[in-house]
Order: sequence, then C-alpha cells, then structure tokens
Amino acid sequence: MRRQALRQRFADAELDALLVTDLRNIRYLTGFTGSNAALLVHGDGDERSVFCTDGRYTTQAEAQVPDLRRVIARPSAVALVENAAEGLSRGAVLGFESQHVSVEQHATFVDAGQNLVLSRAPGLVEQLRAVKDDTEIAALRAACAAADRALADLLEHGGLRAGRTEREVARDLENRMADHGAEAVAFPSIVAAGANSAIPHHRPTDAVLTVGDFVKLDFGAVVDGYHSDMTRTLVLGEPAQWQRDLYALVAAAQAAGTAAVLPGREVSDVDAAARSVIADAGHGERFTHGLGHGVGLDVHEAPSLAKTGVGTLSACMAVTVEPGVYLAGRGGVRIEDTLVVREGTPELLTMSTKELVVA
Amino acid sequence: MRRQALRQRFADAELDALLVTDLRNIRYLTGFTGSNAALLVHGDGDERSVFCTDGRYTTQAEAQVPDLRRVIARPSAVALVENAAEGLSRGAVLGFESQHVSVEQHATFVDAGQNLVLSRAPGLVEQLRAVKDDTEIAALRAACAAADRALADLLEHGGLRAGRTEREVARDLENRMADHGAEAVAFPSIVAAGANSAIPHHRPTDAVLTVGDFVKLDFGAVVDGYHSDMTRTLVLGEPAQWQRDLYALVAAAQAAGTAAVLPGREVSDVDAAARSVIADAGHGERFTHGLGHGVGLDVHEAPSLAKTGVGTLSACMAVTVEPGVYLAGRGGVRIEDTLVVREGTPELLTMSTKELVVA
Repeated sequence: MRRQALRQRFADAELDALLVTDLRNIRYLTGFTGSNAALLVHGDGDERSVFCTDGRYTTQAEAQVPDLRRVIARPSAVALVENAAEGLSRGAVLGFESQHVSVEQHATFVDAGQNLVLSRAPGLVEQLRAVKDDTEIAALRAACAAADRALADLLEHGGLRAGRTEREVARDLENRMADHGAEAVAFPSIVAAGANSAIPHHRPTDAVLTVGDFVKLDFGAVVDGYHSDMTRTLVLGEPAQWQRDLYALVAAAQAAGTAAVLPGREVSDVDAAARSVIADAGHGERFTHGLGHGVGLDVHEAPSLAKTGVGTLSACMAVTVEPGVYLAGRGGVRIEDTLVVREGTPELLTMSTKELVVA
Repeated sequence: MRRQALRQRFADAELDALLVTDLRNIRYLTGFTGSNAALLVHGDGDERSVFCTDGRYTTQAEAQVPDLRRVIARPSAVALVENAAEGLSRGAVLGFESQHVSVEQHATFVDAGQNLVLSRAPGLVEQLRAVKDDTEIAALRAACAAADRALADLLEHGGLRAGRTEREVARDLENRMADHGAEAVAFPSIVAAGANSAIPHHRPTDAVLTVGDFVKLDFGAVVDGYHSDMTRTLVLGEPAQWQRDLYALVAAAQAAGTAAVLPGREVSDVDAAARSVIADAGHGERFTHGLGHGVGLDVHEAPSLAKTGVGTLSACMAVTVEPGVYLAGRGGVRIEDTLVVREGTPELLTMSTKELVVA
C-alpha cells in the first residue's frame, strides 16, 4: 500500500512523520482530486495520520478519503503542522516537501511547529511515483491510446491539410482526444508548421499550413489523472531530400535512445545513446533539450533522461524518448514516444508509426 | 513602464536588485511567454538588468525580450544569482520571490550568491499586477466576452438540455469559447447538475442533466494571457419554489457584494457586504468560500476578497464577486461576475444576465 511504502523510507530519512503538500503527491497517496489539501503521514500508521482540506471539499473528501481522519481547516498545511505539534513528542522530526514548499510557507510552518524539528525531505513521494503499478500503467496506456487515435482520426479525415491554421489543427486534435476518452489535454498542444517547427516549444498561431512544410505535433491526453506525451513530425506533400535526411537522423536517434531504455541503465547514458547519433551527424548543437522525462500524474516527473540527469532506470518506470533537431528558419523534427521500462525491450505505449508520414 | 514602477519599490523594500522567478511575473515585466525563465531587475536600470532562459527559447526570447540583455543558461535562476554575485558589490541585497521560491531552490541561491544578502521580497510584482492598465483591461474584456458569447451560443443552440452529460456540456462550452477567440480555457470548466451543484468545485462527470436540476456553470477564457471567470446557475425546466428562493438570495448577495466594490474599501468589508445577506437568511454556514479574487495573468491573484483578506481596493483592480449557497444533497447556486473597480460604480466585464434563466 502506497502510504506504507512511504513510511518504510522514514527510517533512512530520519523522519517521525512527513507533511505532504504537493497535490499530485496527495492524490497518489489518498485518491483526493481537489485543489487544496495537506496530508500528515505519521510513521506509526494510518491511525495517527490526518488528511486536511477546506470547506469546499468536505463532501468530496468524505467520498475520496474515507480511510483517514479528516480535518477541515485553512490554511490546511499549517493546520496539520499544528496537529503534528500536538500529536508528536517534543523534538520529533517532521519532514516537509522542501522542493515544493516556498520560503514564506516554511516560515509559517516554523511558527506553527515550535516544538518540532522541521526537516527538508524532498522527493520522497516522487521517488515512489516514478515506478508505476499496473493500475497506473493501464491509465497511461489509455491516455496514450486516446492521443494515438486522435492523430489517426485527424489524418483520416484530412484534418492536416494546407490552408488550415496551426490553431485549427490543435483544436481539432484536442477535440478528437476528448472523443477518445481524454478527460483533459496533458498540456497545451504544440502544432508548429514550416519554419515554426524549428521552435522546440512553439505555441499554435494563425500561421497557415503550406505544402512542403514540416508539421510538428506534440500533444497528450489525461485519463484518470495520468498524462500521455507524444510528438510526430509529418510533411505536407512530397518531402524534400533535406527533410527526408533530417527525419531519418532523428528517427535513428529515437531508436537508439529507446534501445537504451533498460532497467539499471544510468539516465545520462540513455540520453547519450540518442545524442551521440545526432552529434555524429554534426547536429549536436541543434538538439537543445534533454532526451526525455518520466510521465504519470504529472506530465513531467522523475526520472529526467538528460545529460545532467542522475540515477538509473528501474522496471515499470514510464518515460518519454524525444530527440529533436531544429534548423532555425527552415524547420525541425522531433519524434517522441511514451514507454514503460521492462526487462529486455521497453513496452511502447505510443503506437503511431514512426515512418515519415506524408499528409 | 512596469520595470521602472517595480524599481520605485526597491528603496522601501531595501533591495539593490530583485530576482524574479515566477513566470507570470516575468511575462508581466518582459512579455516573455515561455515555460522557463528568470529575470534580474537591477535597481540602477535596464542596462544592468538581465533576462535568462534555456536553449529551447533562444529565438523566442530574441523576439519577445529584445530590450534586455539575454543569457541562455540552466537552471536559469541560479545563473542569474551568479550573475548578480558578479555584478553587485559585496553585501548588496538581492531580493527573491519568497512566496514562489522553494526551500530547496533557495538553498541553491545561497550557494550561488555567497557575497550577497538574499532577502525575502514576496509579492512586489503581484502588488503592481493587481492594478490593471488599459491594455490589460482590454484583454480581460475580450476574455469575458468570449465566455459570455459561449454561454449565449450554448443556450441558443439548445446545448443545455436534459439527457446531456456534464462532460458534454463542458466540452461544448469550451469549444464555443474557442470560437469566440479564447486561446485557452482559464481553468477546467465546472458543470454541475442537480445535487452535484451543491459541490462548490465539482468536476464534470458522466452524470446526465435532468429536468428540475440546477445546473451550475463556472468557466472562463484566456485572451492574450488574461483570464476571465464567471459562474451562472440555471434551472432545467420550471424552477421549484425553493430553487427560486435560493437563487434570489444568492443574487441579492451578489448585488450587495458588487455595490461594495469601491476604491478605498477594505476587502474584508466587501466580503462582509455579501456574506451578511446570506447569514441573515440563515445560510451563513453554507457559503463556504471567499467572495472573490483578483483576475489577470492568473485566474486567482491579488486581491483576495475574503473574511481574512487584508488591504483595500484601488481603482482599476479586476476582481470577481461570487457568493454561493450549497445545500448538500439538493443543489447549490453560485453567481459570479468579473468586474473592474472604478470610482462610483464598478465596470461589469461579465455581461450575461443574472436573472434566473430557465433552459
């Protein structure tokens, strides 16, 4: 059980209890989906743990968090520090999520928990979240399928054609994801045509798609709170040779990166496996971002597959592999899948073809 | 000019420079719309100020921030602390946005800025942002109009009818906002039918709209980065007397709150003006949230119109007024407008009728 798995890390972290304030982490540990909450996970067990939200969510908390003691108070996190100050012995160590808690908020914790030792405890829940269970992988699979099907529908219905604007294509794609069960978009969709495709994180504009353009589509769906993330780059009309070459290079890098996704592999080595393919072709400086990232309740979460990433992959982590090469003023290609780390070959959740598609 | 207005607050705050890390604040001060950046506002002027982002946004930063020195580095905030450590004299005071900067991030600033005094400086840009200029009010007006028109279209086309699900209505409404120029939704739309309308922040489900239901719609549009926020509660079919009574009570509270929106008024008094109407009717405990909040580049920003709010209104602040009464298991009503504080009467940006609409 997730809260129990978290408690098993308390000894190493030298904590008596952990104050969880990040909403994704709270959802992971309790199932609560509201927009304000705090959770005190006590080392002794659920009997002494407490969930807190405000008056807007009284009913919802009863339904979603029936198995924990509930307190209605605001600010909820400070209320739980006060609760801990009463329930824990003097000098007990209360961990807090120091990568999320602001300096101002921390000051309110210090005021409320005078007899406690407040201890920085970043990333404890995030580490658990990096490795997915079957329920989570099923949600990710459904989210990836919604995105795959939306793209297939878009192409089948001629949705990607000269004369349409980037914005129109983005909206069409997002509606089709909803048709296939997406409860939300994972992030604002990127649709980047022509020279705009050379901007890695271009936001859709009224720019019109034109024959000869690269069109880069980076989008994802949310199902049961879990995010998918995929990118495909297509060509409108017959590709030029430079487009074929650039596409083939990025596809080769994507394949090399995917092949390196194995349990026990250093994340920086996975990045290097793809990056070296691009660097060897003389485009190293034009691959300006990391290779990929974990996906789950957040669209970007641990682990980070980047040059500067630290740590190794484990089975059942869900990650993206998304190399890109961007030629300023001409166009760029990125190809991205979401996949699950498995012994041997990773499990692809993004099923759309990675052949160069001509729309 | 906005950066100059910010600098004029440095003397009172005892700062030599301010490190801005909140992306909305950076957008406000520079126009940059990317997802990673930091900004060092130097007290001496723009000549010594620096903007930083990462390699994904090199081109975009050139276009959006042509008037400041630009550095490409990651992590961008730490790079600017290092920059400040070089550019400021020993013992100079560098403010940071302590309500946004996490405890972990602060530790990296301390490492990078050894010869500086890091000083908590929460809310400096937010205070500026609370008072809108004409360009901002024009964007808010357009965002409110997109939401108003979407609702009018929905009703005109019979989009709110028995048999549809909450989710279908939400999607329909969101598409119609896009038709009217919304670049995004301001937040995930709330569509809550029947007993669900008693849940203040209900998320749309597959629950089916039924004759006799209250249907509460809380939604907004984003135009040029600015958010609108409105709520209307309608009845499907002929309203019952309790529905008419509850609606009239909330409408009266909303009118009383709006009438109290005046320059110089304490924000807690504005909340009280509406709350007392509901309390006098015996429903004080069923109005479980604050009366309203500022809107702008964030959908929730300063000021907070709440019992616990501090400060007074100023002309050209943009705020919501949104009282609600929620009868668990039966239904609830909330009515919300976005408006601008003006001398005399506030300027309504939300133009949809507040009469009880029967759909």
